[in-house]
Amino acid sequence: MHDALIVGAGFSGLEAARRLAPDHDVIVLEAADRPGGRVLSHTFANGDETDLGGQWVGPGQDRLYGLIAAMGFSTWPLWDEGDHLVRAGGLKRYRGTIPNLSVPVLLDLNRALSRFEAMARQLDPASPWTHAKAHVWDRMTVGDFLRRYTFTAPAREMFTVGIGAVFCAEPHELSLLHALFYARSGRSLDALLSVTGGAQQDRVHGSMGALAQAVAGTLGDRVHYGQPVRAIGWDASGVSVQTGSQSFKAKRVILALPPSQALGIRFDPALPAGRDALWRRMPAGACIKCVAQYDRPFWRDSGLSGQAVGGELAVRVTFDNTERGKSAGQLLGFIEGEEARRWSAVSAETRREAVLDAFASFFGDAARSPIDYADKDWTSDPWTRGCYAAIMGPGVWTTLGEDLRRPVGPLHVAGTETAIHGFGYIEGALEAGARAADEVRAALT
Amino acid sequence: MHDALIVGAGFSGLEAARRLAPDHDVIVLEAADRPGGRVLSHTFANGDETDLGGQWVGPGQDRLYGLIAAMGFSTWPLWDEGDHLVRAGGLKRYRGTIPNLSVPVLLDLNRALSRFEAMARQLDPASPWTHAKAHVWDRMTVGDFLRRYTFTAPAREMFTVGIGAVFCAEPHELSLLHALFYARSGRSLDALLSVTGGAQQDRVHGSMGALAQAVAGTLGDRVHYGQPVRAIGWDASGVSVQTGSQSFKAKRVILALPPSQALGIRFDPALPAGRDALWRRMPAGACIKCVAQYDRPFWRDSGLSGQAVGGELAVRVTFDNTERGKSAGQLLGFIEGEEARRWSAVSAETRREAVLDAFASFFGDAARSPIDYADKDWTSDPWTRGCYAAIMGPGVWTTLGEDLRRPVGPLHVAGTETAIHGFGYIEGALEAGARAADEVRAALT
Repeated sequence: MHDALIVGAGFSGLEAARRLAPDHDVIVLEAADRPGGRVLSHTFANGDETDLGGQWVGPGQDRLYGLIAAMGFSTWPLWDEGDHLVRAGGLKRYRGTIPNLSVPVLLDLNRALSRFEAMARQLDPASPWTHAKAHVWDRMTVGDFLRRYTFTAPAREMFTVGIGAVFCAEPHELSLLHALFYARSGRSLDALLSVTGGAQQDRVHGSMGALAQAVAGTLGDRVHYGQPVRAIGWDASGVSVQTGSQSFKAKRVILALPPSQALGIRFDPALPAGRDALWRRMPAGACIKCVAQYDRPFWRDSGLSGQAVGGELAVRVTFDNTERGKSAGQLLGFIEGEEARRWSAVSAETRREAVLDAFASFFGDAARSPIDYADKDWTSDPWTRGCYAAIMGPGVWTTLGEDLRRPVGPLHVAGTETAIHGFGYIEGALEAGARAADEVRAALT
Repeated sequence: MHDALIVGAGFSGLEAARRLAPDHDVIVLEAADRPGGRVLSHTFANGDETDLGGQWVGPGQDRLYGLIAAMGFSTWPLWDEGDHLVRAGGLKRYRGTIPNLSVPVLLDLNRALSRFEAMARQLDPASPWTHAKAHVWDRMTVGDFLRRYTFTAPAREMFTVGIGAVFCAEPHELSLLHALFYARSGRSLDALLSVTGGAQQDRVHGSMGALAQAVAGTLGDRVHYGQPVRAIGWDASGVSVQTGSQSFKAKRVILALPPSQALGIRFDPALPAGRDALWRRMPAGACIKCVAQYDRPFWRDSGLSGQAVGGELAVRVTFDNTERGKSAGQLLGFIEGEEARRWSAVSAETRREAVLDAFASFFGDAARSPIDYADKDWTSDPWTRGCYAAIMGPGVWTTLGEDLRRPVGPLHVAGTETAIHGFGYIEGALEAGARAADEVRAALT
């Protein structure tokens, strides 16, 4: 009989375990053969590391900066110098967060962004359903918002690319209230879209995946890999957990996995209807993360930042992911939302060509000749089934949101999707893990 | 090594088994301790039967009429005489499908209904995503449709009650394309809302649940109850199926359970990303079905049909469910959508009082004194988690719909949510079961 059993060795489960381990008997069951969850490092042939999952840390994410420092890791700022590119019709250079579009389009885009930010600021991220207009906003999609509050097609398209970059989903899939909450939870939409001063500001030397490995290392053999939890029996006295091959007993469980993955566990007795219905309405966004490695960051020669946005090809958002101090360059591209569906179904080789085509459309033919390439289709990962985080369609927050963090008997919930600040980010995973650990500690004393 | 293993003994799985059983070795694994799935009979204290799940059969549902006759059952027309009631402000009497509202409201409602029907008629129910406007309609919710095409609040409210009665969901939860498809799949929205001439025309003597029992009876010990499937291993040569207590091998599997329930099965190898993403975006509607039994159908004395619609109480749609030839009367009420969430969380006694309050608001104080009462909260049923059927939010059909019926290796899919005609109805369950049986038969020869 363990004190606490934690399902999932992503950053949220690891944080919960790290906090409980000093004075409690804790084990962590992880379905995959590695820690990290939606954080995953990759080593290129030349030995350079990169991240194929979550990788950034930025201002306001104090828990994550603290963990990085505590584990002896360090950060470096993402390359953010030179001109960004936007493809809207032709290819144009710009600086700052807002692309270089015509004046009417810029005014339109700015007005819509300002309106969105002003609405988001009004929400309490701990209970977005309590806002006076919560029901109105939860019955609209972000697509409705754009139809109502933008007047030019290019502004709508740019906003849509931004939404894709943040949610890996299309505007019509998202409750407006959820999008507003998400921006508020991460400070603001501008912060979520920004490099310097925003959520894409810093990366970890080595990789974020290596940090997850290091944290898991401190837990030693408390972490069991290749142990997907299939069934949890529970009552007031504790829980009995079955994986494919073993059984475990504990006083408390922390479910630190994506909501949609929790649906793969049979609970006995069954969970309350509201909890079940909530999880069934929290599928993940769709994302394929693609990194091409070049002998050097050649785009910088032309005064380009490596940041590009827009177009009609597979990749519509790119970054210069080159680690400071390394000679080889890295271009990072995201395939998001509906495009991720399409490019998930093709061969690895076809997808690689499509990604390099997109890179070349921004940075020229040199982008077609990387020295190495890697991508990760998170929609095909059996223990994740999408990234970055769960999305909520219309009506979910206001009818089922109150259950999001509420424990059910001895079952506590963590994971970034239960965070108040940093929902969808590693920062939120840490907050949720710490909060769930506090709940368990209180219940055990 | 069985020829075919069918997961789920609802009407779809039973139909598939019935078709394969004469010349194949078939078994059916059912999680619950009874057949029927979302069809469930209940016997009142006085011996009268009723249905707490699917119960109706109507014009165009030829497979179901055929099965009823083949099994020696018979039907009777639902009571559809007298005045219906609508509560919109006060309580008013009306006849026909459209409530007695003011002329401007009626015109508004009729125009919106006509527009909806005209759009639905254009769809091919086998491939709604192929329509020229599919992407536009799939990015709108039914709420968007109502905001755009109704001009009076009462018309919008009435349309919303109708949507609730058909989908057990709110307009903002539904992709417009899905709602149009659903109406087309069931002939028309008018047919789905109508009693005589529509989907609520006839009931089965005894109960629909008794018909499911009878069909299961013809399959003998091929049907195994209390066997929830937890894991399915598969390759080109066949499948290996694990329940909590047993293992089975078969050449082919038919998954004849609601999409959201299929997520409780671990597939090895994991299913293709598109299939997984589709199922994760098909949660069920929310419904509590409530039947009060009275010594006689007293409302008929006042010239009332027992059909009422509207109001602000728990039940907003009622029918006279009294079986022809029985002296005791039955009032049937549905708690749907967001209201079902609310009334799922309360005690059985509190809910009963709320239902009888609603009945009394339509039919007077006599409704507060039933001789018996039963209800079924389908959102709490662990093997169903909602009724009547899966719903689809914006964007699902056009990005993931093509996978709906497509087999994956030796895995075939049935269930009413894979039907072309009668999606969401027992008729569709039969069509899907027959189609999957045909696929398996072809694969085995």
